Amino acid sequence: MTFDLTILGSGSALPTSRRYPTAQALNVLERFFLIDCGEGTQLQLRNAKVKFGHINHIFISHLHGDHVFGLFGLLSTFNLLGRKTDLYIYGHSDLENITGFFRRQFAEEMQYPIHIMPLKPGALQLIFEDKVCEVFAFPLRHRVPSWGYLFKEKVRGPNIRKELIDIYKLGIKDIIDIKNGKDFTTSEGVVVPNSDLVTAPKPPRSYAYCSDTAYYERITKWIAGCDVLYHEATFADSERKIAKQTGHSTASQAAMIAKKAGVKKLVLGHFSNRYKELDTLLVEARTIFTETYLAEDLQTISI
Amino acid sequence: MTFDLTILGSGSALPTSRRYPTAQALNVLERFFLIDCGEGTQLQLRNAKVKFGHINHIFISHLHGDHVFGLFGLLSTFNLLGRKTDLYIYGHSDLENITGFFRRQFAEEMQYPIHIMPLKPGALQLIFEDKVCEVFAFPLRHRVPSWGYLFKEKVRGPNIRKELIDIYKLGIKDIIDIKNGKDFTTSEGVVVPNSDLVTAPKPPRSYAYCSDTAYYERITKWIAGCDVLYHEATFADSERKIAKQTGHSTASQAAMIAKKAGVKKLVLGHFSNRYKELDTLLVEARTIFTETYLAEDLQTISI
Repeated sequence: MTFDLTILGSGSALPTSRRYPTAQALNVLERFFLIDCGEGTQLQLRNAKVKFGHINHIFISHLHGDHVFGLFGLLSTFNLLGRKTDLYIYGHSDLENITGFFRRQFAEEMQYPIHIMPLKPGALQLIFEDKVCEVFAFPLRHRVPSWGYLFKEKVRGPNIRKELIDIYKLGIKDIIDIKNGKDFTTSEGVVVPNSDLVTAPKPPRSYAYCSDTAYYERITKWIAGCDVLYHEATFADSERKIAKQTGHSTASQAAMIAKKAGVKKLVLGHFSNRYKELDTLLVEARTIFTETYLAEDLQTISI
Repeated sequence: MTFDLTILGSGSALPTSRRYPTAQALNVLERFFLIDCGEGTQLQLRNAKVKFGHINHIFISHLHGDHVFGLFGLLSTFNLLGRKTDLYIYGHSDLENITGFFRRQFAEEMQYPIHIMPLKPGALQLIFEDKVCEVFAFPLRHRVPSWGYLFKEKVRGPNIRKELIDIYKLGIKDIIDIKNGKDFTTSEGVVVPNSDLVTAPKPPRSYAYCSDTAYYERITKWIAGCDVLYHEATFADSERKIAKQTGHSTASQAAMIAKKAGVKKLVLGHFSNRYKELDTLLVEARTIFTETYLAEDLQTISI
């Protein structure tokens, strides 16, 4: 039951030779989501061996270039690869301008439909749902409208205790009934209570993405208790003033959000290119929240 | 007297994990020219350690995405780095639409002027000139208007024979006069003829860039005798039909152009992603033109 995050780019506005601008691929039980799409995303998708045809949903946090300039190449490549299936792009309504310009200037013969799914300002909103997972968007605080995303497994039903299938010679209908909470009556008329037949499901997992954003405590209620939080940490604490001016966070602020939200693990990213080494950011964050890690390009984190 | 070509990307429309889309950096006696600007060009410029501030002229062959999608990120980065100096972009007049859209959507506070220098169809045209070099554009044959570029050192003056400076106690004015072709008269009244004072300059070097293009014999007269020709070779000969349909060349066709133009060295690039190994293309080209080489990303070729 895969729930894997692959970091495609963990740099910020000025890319370095070690970090691409922002993009992530998320595999939630074989649903492949792309989060942000900085320049070079399609190259990193190839490096990470993510199949292009698997991506049907792209979630864009905000319309700064380092989060969207990879869209042009990716949308082109989809077309060249003969894509016919619908593509959904979530984010600011101006994405319509961007894809419109792209079509006019570069791709008059687009073979597949692109659906822009504009987000509302102000509050947590459910933007995608299928049998196994849900995606929510929520506002961040940045220089331009910016959204975070929360990816959640749905609560799964209880698991049947496999050894009992043979013992009671359970058929498919029996199994469905038991999974739906019914007791089972044996051929001898003995009633086995449902609680003896099943084990509790694993708790549903969740991943929250928060970039770009200044320190914004309001988000902690939306991401409370999530398994992994990716939070931008563009700056060290010594640059707190610049962080505030530019609508970014320091490593300590990211850790404070993780702590207040009670998440299990914090991954820092979107590092300013001014830092050759990131030890300072890691130490500052771990002082507040121990389970903090630094994102690395092409790293995969199992959730 | 540097004249160096650095391949930033030698792939074609579908980039691979080994080749970026098309871009090249050319250093002609410390003038830094960028040729095409596929996605990821700014990342490759960092990897090649080319200073962003040195680039004042960008030459775009045509407006297919794999030759221009890197412009967005590069123009942004120039701005973020505080660029104030003029930037000149040569190519199709629609570049005005592209940079106009870029400004409106992503960069309202641009700090530096961008000058689009539209090219004319039809013939060889001088598009840039300074003290040491000239750049010419000429039409290629592709599905959309496409131009090749020829970068030429100017003919340099003769070199003074250094040992004579001491012997005849030459002053600066004497040296300028001699370089301008005058004889020299010693204090004893002996006339030393100019031909005894100077050695002939090295012949001026030149580099021609031809991508994307179908086989187009007309270009051979414009690039005749150049030191290095980069010519696209998207396909092997077995794909001659597809090459024609898509306005591209095979390796043999590129070699035929090199041979007919009498160039010294041919570099093939813009390889289709269908080829894992390029030996076939190299062998096919070398059968016609021995001095053929395959471009590799981040390789530097001294001209």
